[in-house]
Amino acid sequence: MVNGINHIGIAVKNLEESLKTFSGLMPVEHVHRETVEAQKVNVASFIVGNIMIELLEGTSPESAISKFIEKKGEGIHHIALQTDDAAYDLTQAIEHGFAPIDTTPRVGAHNALVGFLHPKSTNSVLIEFCQPRNEEH
Amino acid sequence: MVNGINHIGIAVKNLEESLKTFSGLMPVEHVHRETVEAQKVNVASFIVGNIMIELLEGTSPESAISKFIEKKGEGIHHIALQTDDAAYDLTQAIEHGFAPIDTTPRVGAHNALVGFLHPKSTNSVLIEFCQPRNEEH
Repeated sequence: MVNGINHIGIAVKNLEESLKTFSGLMPVEHVHRETVEAQKVNVASFIVGNIMIELLEGTSPESAISKFIEKKGEGIHHIALQTDDAAYDLTQAIEHGFAPIDTTPRVGAHNALVGFLHPKSTNSVLIEFCQPRNEEH
Repeated sequence: MVNGINHIGIAVKNLEESLKTFSGLMPVEHVHRETVEAQKVNVASFIVGNIMIELLEGTSPESAISKFIEKKGEGIHHIALQTDDAAYDLTQAIEHGFAPIDTTPRVGAHNALVGFLHPKSTNSVLIEFCQPRNEEH
C-alpha cells in the first residue's frame, strides 16, 4: 500500500553539474551515487528534508532517460510513490484500468523494487511504485 | 532557509477528474480547494504521507498553467521548496546567478509567500520558494 512519496526523479544531461546546481538552492544531504546497468542510468540521489530527489543521467543513447531528454529536454521525469508492496499496487492499478509500463516489479536504484505506470492514464505524470528494501552496497 | 519540499505542482486540464485519478493510486488526505485569482488558477491540494501534491487548473487561457498545457501538455509543473524566508532565498539565488521569474515573493495558494526561479538555470525544473504562513480561510 502506498504511504507517501519516495522520491522525485529528474532527467539531466550531466549528473555532477546538476548536483552542483541543486546544491546551490537546497540542503543536499546523504548524497548517493549508483549506476543501474539494466536501465543504463547513472543516479545521484540526495535527501532534501522530507523527501529524496534522484538525478538521472543516461549512460547510452538507448537509455529511457536519454530518449526522454532527446524528446522533451531535461526536467522532472517521474514521481515515485513509496509502497510496502510494489507488485500488489501495480496489479491493483492495472485492474483499475491504469496503463502499465511494467506488469511486475524489477530492481531499481537503492535495490528497491520498482514498477512504472504509463503517463497516458495519469495526466502525463510518470508514476513509479517504489518498494524500498535493504540496500546491497 | 530551505528545509524540505513543500509540494509538487501538477498542471491538469480538469481538476476534479484528475483528483479522482490520483485518488485511485495513492492515499489522498486533507483535500483543500482554492482559487488563486491573481494567478488565474483553481487549486486542489492534498497530502500524500510526507508531502503535498497541488493540482493546478487554469481558469482562463491567459493563465500560466493554461499556457504550459497548451505548449507542453499536462504534467508535473514545479517543485516547491519549503523555506522560512522566501524573500531571502530568492535574493540569494539571484545573487548566485539563478534566473528569477519573481524578484520578490507574492501571495500564493494556502496564503503562502511564493517566488519562482526560471527553469532555464535549473535543468528545466521550475523551482518555487514557498514560505507557509497562517492560512486565511
